Amino acid sequence: MDLGGTKMQVGVLGADSEVTYESRESSTGQTEDELIELLVREIEEAREARPGVAAVGLGIPATIDHDRGVAISAVNLPIDDLPIRELVGERTGLPIFVDNDANVAALAEHLHGAARGADNAVMLTIGTGIGGGLILGGEVYRGATGAGAELGHVVIAMDGLPCQGNCPGRGCVETYASGTALGREGRAAAERVPDSALGTMAAGGREIDGRAVSEAALDGDPTAIGVFDLVGTRLGVALTSFANIFEPEVFVIGGGVIAAGDLLLEPARRELSARALPPMKDTPVVAAEMGADAGMVGAAAMARAELEQGRPG
Amino acid sequence: MDLGGTKMQVGVLGADSEVTYESRESSTGQTEDELIELLVREIEEAREARPGVAAVGLGIPATIDHDRGVAISAVNLPIDDLPIRELVGERTGLPIFVDNDANVAALAEHLHGAARGADNAVMLTIGTGIGGGLILGGEVYRGATGAGAELGHVVIAMDGLPCQGNCPGRGCVETYASGTALGREGRAAAERVPDSALGTMAAGGREIDGRAVSEAALDGDPTAIGVFDLVGTRLGVALTSFANIFEPEVFVIGGGVIAAGDLLLEPARRELSARALPPMKDTPVVAAEMGADAGMVGAAAMARAELEQGRPG
Repeated sequence: MDLGGTKMQVGVLGADSEVTYESRESSTGQTEDELIELLVREIEEAREARPGVAAVGLGIPATIDHDRGVAISAVNLPIDDLPIRELVGERTGLPIFVDNDANVAALAEHLHGAARGADNAVMLTIGTGIGGGLILGGEVYRGATGAGAELGHVVIAMDGLPCQGNCPGRGCVETYASGTALGREGRAAAERVPDSALGTMAAGGREIDGRAVSEAALDGDPTAIGVFDLVGTRLGVALTSFANIFEPEVFVIGGGVIAAGDLLLEPARRELSARALPPMKDTPVVAAEMGADAGMVGAAAMARAELEQGRPG
Repeated sequence: MDLGGTKMQVGVLGADSEVTYESRESSTGQTEDELIELLVREIEEAREARPGVAAVGLGIPATIDHDRGVAISAVNLPIDDLPIRELVGERTGLPIFVDNDANVAALAEHLHGAARGADNAVMLTIGTGIGGGLILGGEVYRGATGAGAELGHVVIAMDGLPCQGNCPGRGCVETYASGTALGREGRAAAERVPDSALGTMAAGGREIDGRAVSEAALDGDPTAIGVFDLVGTRLGVALTSFANIFEPEVFVIGGGVIAAGDLLLEPARRELSARALPPMKDTPVVAAEMGADAGMVGAAAMARAELEQGRPG
């Protein structure tokens, strides 16, 4: 199950990770109790449709205590130290495994997508914020309790802008290379170059967010392309840090912003190549392959891996 | 064996990691051939003194291909793609294991020092530069080929000063929180406050390097203490990135600069606590415990771990 701030994707996966059942539901505006109800109901519906479900994996955009199966906090969901594993496990009688959405997306790319065959891979999911997932030594790395891999909160500008959401930091890459940053820089560029396509969009009343900048850039507007160049360069600064830290075999970039493809990735590659230590400077930077199914497929894979390692759900 | 740029420490360790033999040699000014000769001679002397040596671990301040046992490059040693494992192994008939000096120091702290019991620990060795060692999931993390964990080359200021040595980057924490940075900021402070103890030292002809700033700060000079506050704060910015990435159980700080103790660590803790995400902000930041023996003890432990995992030296 891939639980997002506005929608939820539910699937049953077979022995070869093939999707044998799928369902989508709204997840907006639920209280904690309603959220648990919704999860239980969706699980029971899936079991009815495809009997023999062995365990449930749940990917959530939240700080997770993976070992205890507790969702600690989330920006877009009503979650506050919610013991999901226990609550959903009691009601369904199934082993339940809970993980951060970016971790399960990284696992999906590792097993079936752009990081296939890479024992060490760094994945960034770039949307409103920047989520991180780490595959190290062939396994998901989560930190001491599962709250780690917050790769969007690597500092690239020590005296930079305050970060967003529940992050008390400043100068995090999330502030400089997320969809939010793309919108902010896009609005500034639209003002600076009013006769650009971006400027014309803004003058016509269109809200300049990340999506608007992507549209204009993909249509060839040099000003919007310049915004991607700036944001991609800053992404490349963070990739430099990750390259020097991890010496990964590949960087995988996913999330809504990757729709712009090489407009984002080329400046990031250029910066990485110019800044990283020699053994790491040519680390490939590629787009995610799993698309919208990454969360669901990764959550299932995570649950399977936990079961195989003999962990109780 | 702990091979440094100016000296080499050789030891034989017993089953309980007790040091049963020890020797120190100069390592200055050797060519590659002479270095191999020196290593072989030291190993043979140690074996003569303590028969029954099972394997040799070698910690080197260099970029290492750990799996192949090759030292790729070093700033302070005449090393250029030197296949140490092969050359020394052939001459001695012993299994040889080679690793970065910061990695083996981290292993020593993990097994016997300040990171005992921590499955996930981040170690920084702060001297002229900043070396990094990672214990993740109870093991040394080295990256795809062993060139990773270059934690001194995390970018904290994307538009900052050019880095040193073979690093093409700019704004790396090594540039802002190493002994070199301490000296640079110390010289600036001595000029700014000529009647400070630091200013008096400079006026008296003393070269203001990291050691001089440490001396003045430990003697209570507010100007020198201010330099540590600045450098410690910048160290804390890098620790924030590492905390958000790794969610480690502990940070261990070693190297010459740690002689100043809490003068360095307190501002780093303060900055970490102010900037890191809530679950990570109180991660302990402690001084290394293994001192000058860290490299030697860690190299032996590394060789033992490799042997136990059945790797051929």
